[in-house]
Formats: sequence, structure tokens, C-alpha cells
Amino acid sequence: MSMETENIHERYMREALREAHKAYERDEVPIGCVIVSHNRIIARGHNLTETLNDVTAHAEMQAITSAAEYLGGKYLTDCTLYVTLEPCIMCAGALKWAQISRIVFGAADAKGGYARLNAPVLHPKTEVIPGVLEEECRSLLQEFFRGKRA
Amino acid sequence: MSMETENIHERYMREALREAHKAYERDEVPIGCVIVSHNRIIARGHNLTETLNDVTAHAEMQAITSAAEYLGGKYLTDCTLYVTLEPCIMCAGALKWAQISRIVFGAADAKGGYARLNAPVLHPKTEVIPGVLEEECRSLLQEFFRGKRA
Repeated sequence: MSMETENIHERYMREALREAHKAYERDEVPIGCVIVSHNRIIARGHNLTETLNDVTAHAEMQAITSAAEYLGGKYLTDCTLYVTLEPCIMCAGALKWAQISRIVFGAADAKGGYARLNAPVLHPKTEVIPGVLEEECRSLLQEFFRGKRA
Repeated sequence: MSMETENIHERYMREALREAHKAYERDEVPIGCVIVSHNRIIARGHNLTETLNDVTAHAEMQAITSAAEYLGGKYLTDCTLYVTLEPCIMCAGALKWAQISRIVFGAADAKGGYARLNAPVLHPKTEVIPGVLEEECRSLLQEFFRGKRA
């Protein structure tokens, strides 16, 4: 990964973090994402499961729907998802259906992430880049849950 | 499983099949479902991925959202999902988050179903009953795809 590519990934991950902060402000688990196509953000999302009373209202699910609407087609074959936390099984399954080109995530999720299944959940052509701005993404989550326990 | 219980499962699976027929009529892959709580159908759904241009618009996803709205809470711990085809990984992941009590499905899906992962996708407390009205559920799908190839 070249320095320039790394900077691009960090730039978009900062946008995903902005979305995560919006969730935090609503007292939602702070997870955010953006979907990028041809160097342009075409969809944004942040976790709204509590606000909407809906387990399916993860950041990624909303962004997938929104990106497909923007593109006028349901496949995201030319898109990169930037998300602050490793996607869960539901979201990974949706990303498989969407045939997304690339997933860049911040913090790993050993408990709820798709990777723990150690099974072919994603589309075989989907590239995965973990650990971009990992510390910032994880810190925001830790701060949120510390506040919950206090 | 007592005869009476079997009849109850078949009765609700016929309702799921009615939903699948609605999808068929819209030229959607014919999959349908209902969610039952305390012997009452509280949500219905049929596949709308083409109509809505959205890979997340599976029958189950819509019904989960709808059932949670009906119940005023996001957990479906006292609910049974009846669905004509074995849920995919995305839907199984959503059903895990919803902590649904029971999943009754018609036809198995060796290619796209969650079970092929051979991994703990569902909530450990979720009971699964496969093969209810299997032939009817499978026939409807076969008829649809035969029509597509013709």
C-alpha cells in the first residue's frame, strides 16, 4: 500500500468516524461508515438501532441501501466501504449480496465480527483492508461503553 | 412434534407461501415469510430486491423491521419466523441480533443458506425446524427459475 493510498484510506475513514460521532451523540453505539465510488462519497450511515428500534439499522445496511439508490442498481461492484468497526455477520452477508469491491475497516470485532466465523461469508472478489485508524475507531467505542457503565 | 403442532406450522407456512406468491407476481424470486407471536401474525414480508433495487430487501429483513415496530421493541424473543426458504447469511445474522425464538423454514438452500457455513451464525437459543411444506416451497422457486430460462 503506497503512502498516497494510505492517506486516501485515512481520509475516508475520518468521514466514517464523523458518522460514528453522530451515532454517539444520539446515544447509539458509535459506528459509522461511508461508501466511496470513483473517489466520491455516495452514501453515509451511522448506527441507529436504538433510535429506530430495529436490529437491522446498522450503519452499513443503511449505506448499502442508500448507495444502491444513488447508483440506480443494487450491485456495488465499483465501491469501497469504509466502516469504523469490522462488519457483523448480517452486514457481511449484505455486502456479499452487493458484491462490494472493497471493505476497509478500523477496529476489529473479535466477538461480533464476521471474521470469527472463519468461513467464506464475503464475496470471493471482495478485498478487505483492516486496521485503518484502528486506535481512533476503538477509542470512540471504548469511551461510549465506559460512559454506559459509569 | 405433535400432529397439532405440525398443523400449526403448516398453517403459518401457507401464509408465508402466500407472501412468496406475491413476490412471484412481481417477477421477484418467490420467497415469503410471516412472523408469529402468541398465535398471531404480527408481520409479513416478501422478497422485493428487484423492485426496490436493494439487496437488503429480503422477505425476512422487512418482516423483522415490521415485527419490531409492531412490538415496540427490537427483540423478537417470543416470536417464530416462518419462511419458505432457508435464510441467507445476512438474514440469519439479523435473526441472531433479534434473538428470535424459532425459525421454521420450507426448502433448504444448499448454495445460499446460512447452514452451509457450518458455523454458529444464529443465536444459541434459537430453535430451527426445517422442511415444513418443503415440496411446495421448492416447487414455487423451481417454477420461477424455469420461467426465467425459457
